[in-house]
Amino acid sequence: MSFPDPLASEQAQALPPALVTALDALLGARFSQKRGDRDQHAASESFHRGPPPDAVVWPDSAEEVSSILRACSQHAVPVIPWGTGTSLEGHALASRGGITLNLSRMDRVLEVRAADMQASVQPGVTREALNTDLRATELFFPVDPGANASLGGMAATRASGTTAVRYGTMRDNVLALQVVLADGRIIRTGTRAAKSSAGYDLTALFVGSEGTLGVITELTLRLQGQPEETAAAVCAFDTLQAAVDCVTVTIHSGIPMARIEFVDALTARAFNLHSGTSLPELPHLMVEFHGSATSVREDAARFGEIATEMGAAGFDWATTPEDRARLWRMRHGAYHAAFALRPGSVGVVTDVCVPMSHLADAVAGAAQDIAASGLVGPIVGHVGDGNFHSLLLIDPGNERQMAQAKALALRMAERALAVGGTITGEHGVGLGKRGLMAAEHGEGWQVMGAIKTALDPAGILNPGKLVPDCPAPPDCPAPDCPAPDCPAPG
Amino acid sequence: MSFPDPLASEQAQALPPALVTALDALLGARFSQKRGDRDQHAASESFHRGPPPDAVVWPDSAEEVSSILRACSQHAVPVIPWGTGTSLEGHALASRGGITLNLSRMDRVLEVRAADMQASVQPGVTREALNTDLRATELFFPVDPGANASLGGMAATRASGTTAVRYGTMRDNVLALQVVLADGRIIRTGTRAAKSSAGYDLTALFVGSEGTLGVITELTLRLQGQPEETAAAVCAFDTLQAAVDCVTVTIHSGIPMARIEFVDALTARAFNLHSGTSLPELPHLMVEFHGSATSVREDAARFGEIATEMGAAGFDWATTPEDRARLWRMRHGAYHAAFALRPGSVGVVTDVCVPMSHLADAVAGAAQDIAASGLVGPIVGHVGDGNFHSLLLIDPGNERQMAQAKALALRMAERALAVGGTITGEHGVGLGKRGLMAAEHGEGWQVMGAIKTALDPAGILNPGKLVPDCPAPPDCPAPDCPAPDCPAPG
Repeated sequence: MSFPDPLASEQAQALPPALVTALDALLGARFSQKRGDRDQHAASESFHRGPPPDAVVWPDSAEEVSSILRACSQHAVPVIPWGTGTSLEGHALASRGGITLNLSRMDRVLEVRAADMQASVQPGVTREALNTDLRATELFFPVDPGANASLGGMAATRASGTTAVRYGTMRDNVLALQVVLADGRIIRTGTRAAKSSAGYDLTALFVGSEGTLGVITELTLRLQGQPEETAAAVCAFDTLQAAVDCVTVTIHSGIPMARIEFVDALTARAFNLHSGTSLPELPHLMVEFHGSATSVREDAARFGEIATEMGAAGFDWATTPEDRARLWRMRHGAYHAAFALRPGSVGVVTDVCVPMSHLADAVAGAAQDIAASGLVGPIVGHVGDGNFHSLLLIDPGNERQMAQAKALALRMAERALAVGGTITGEHGVGLGKRGLMAAEHGEGWQVMGAIKTALDPAGILNPGKLVPDCPAPPDCPAPDCPAPDCPAPG
Repeated sequence: MSFPDPLASEQAQALPPALVTALDALLGARFSQKRGDRDQHAASESFHRGPPPDAVVWPDSAEEVSSILRACSQHAVPVIPWGTGTSLEGHALASRGGITLNLSRMDRVLEVRAADMQASVQPGVTREALNTDLRATELFFPVDPGANASLGGMAATRASGTTAVRYGTMRDNVLALQVVLADGRIIRTGTRAAKSSAGYDLTALFVGSEGTLGVITELTLRLQGQPEETAAAVCAFDTLQAAVDCVTVTIHSGIPMARIEFVDALTARAFNLHSGTSLPELPHLMVEFHGSATSVREDAARFGEIATEMGAAGFDWATTPEDRARLWRMRHGAYHAAFALRPGSVGVVTDVCVPMSHLADAVAGAAQDIAASGLVGPIVGHVGDGNFHSLLLIDPGNERQMAQAKALALRMAERALAVGGTITGEHGVGLGKRGLMAAEHGEGWQVMGAIKTALDPAGILNPGKLVPDCPAPPDCPAPDCPAPDCPAPG
């Protein structure tokens, strides 16, 4: 396994004049080839950078997306969907040139069906905007990756976050989609019913497909009732092992945790530096309980007993909504706070997820590897799911450190795969994890490629991401295959 | 929309001698062309009947399944996977001839990983066998369609049942699969981690694919902890409307129901006739609560208040495990009990699922239509999901009644689609619902066909089921398309 440089020998190309004319006629000022607009879509929240796309478009409707895709299909020009640009694996970068499809203008909450606990939204609606819209309904959308990402982007990357342990990921909370295919066809997947056995689960196929199979232009989301009662707490442990063991025991006990988050001693230090808190510089768990007044009291008491038995101390309960908001703002700010540990650095974020029985070993192994490398790398985790991240901080332009960080990330991925885990719990594949897909999926990766080819034969949708360039099986005899990662021998 | 006769002009053909020789060498006595073996695989639990397959094979391993599929691919002979034959839509019938792949010998529980709350099983393990195996672990597998189906078959049809309202369907409870593709390749999908964002969700694609994309040869299942406390009850309502309204209010209240089942007055009568019970001949709800002693008490009390307010009477609590087993045996026996209402009849089962806000109207509309038809058709439902069934009882061979039953089923499906529901909540497509797939999915049905063609280009896997015969888009110009349901104009 290796991390190839995904941008090597990939250069942007000029757009065909007929396509420029067509998009200009269709979109007017919402089609731009200006350097400033293009540069804004060449960066991401992580260290991944792309060449600027050849143009940016801002469609207003599924029909416009359809026209754009039809035109780009005709000219074999790549199209890269863009939500809010908060992805961490370079998903929305134009690594093979083409046109960035910025969906931020499609930001309407189309319908809230409170009686069915569902909302239909356009893809550019952010999760915070939806939850603001829902305030009057006593409902909320539970998936919370921290960033105020667009719901279309969250679906495209199968995002999750702190509340997945209770409410699931985007896989569990998207009921139906409207999708525009590469050839411009507009389809609907799923229904408004709670379940269906009517054929292939196309909704689940498009969720997590990272813009490589189609462009999501509408989502039907499952909502949750605001819990009658909420309580949250933070507590400290003497050792990383004790904190992670506490998670395992808690999850096995069946307590329906709404959140159970781990932060290591270094992250606690980062919070203190960044937010002026005065947490002990020890591993912590941050937890939340949702339910009736009785059940929250009972769940919190049971968790308290387990945690105390595992040596937890310094319980700090957040009882008011303001205190809870502060607690989770701190946790969600971990990515930015970590830079306080090494101002001016850039970060490489890891994202493995392992079965619960291997969590303690996986986190301890990662911590030891990071310590041995000499890099600064705080660890946080959605540990109720077995998912944890390290943020490896390196000096900009320091290639030795970047190589060290990538080697650490690779080692964590290998450890995760060795125990039946996954290379990415929630951040997705994008550019950063593509080199590991064959290691996780084996022949299954070729199957993903075959599906991609069936739905996007010209390969215009977000090329260079997620699927292999050549979906042929390994015994494909093509002697002069042009695919850079052709799996054929020789 | 119409229900075409799926067996019209479809005849079994003789097997190529080279294939017979190959399968005989591979499987010996586990390859049979005997009339008795073939006839056993021409029947189903429902009114659907198929021609007998040309042969039956009983593989022992994924490797044997792979060899069988490679050989059948080579000879373009259909392969139809078979679990326990309890499907209700004719999924496992050899409607276009070929070889039935009976997976009942692959019936080992491979591993129970209690610490991860997971089990790995072969596809022929039945859900009851798995739960028997799990008794010592304090864990259980929650999906319960009533029939003691094989877990491979349950995954293939995306089965659910009485507990889906709490624990989800097979979609939610299958973490990973081993699948043999049409060309014999053996792939693994998913991981043992609780979640993953590593590419297309192939697990979700194969779950519900009804043997048309691959043969499931191993499943990794999510298990649940046995609840500390369980309570169940049955209560009667004066009207169907009151019972269904009670469900809607209960679900909205957020009470985490473990089961909430509706049976109508006619079904209560069937239970009395069949099981010697003395239920009032009124609509009933049957409910179950799982949790801690405190939460079960609280949930049961809250439900009791809601139900009483909606006019429920005759609450009968099942407090011992024996009483609960009797209650759910009765509910699961509804399909067989119903025949007591009209001994000697055959049944046509419907299976729509609608958004909760439309449930009361959908059930009332179905009841009115059945009453107007003059047919006997009791209604039961997993109403917490918006899913309900009628069992339309007709005289064997009475074509007028069969046409009436199909017209009623069609009307229910149309009503469900009109409110954003689905033509099948849990029984799947098989032969019975294929004629309605275009109405539910539109162009999405062609997308399913394109995926099918990508993974099974020769179309040997369970042909004539689920997908269109021709996956081309409607503007396909082929003038002499041989597909019986070619969507091209003219």
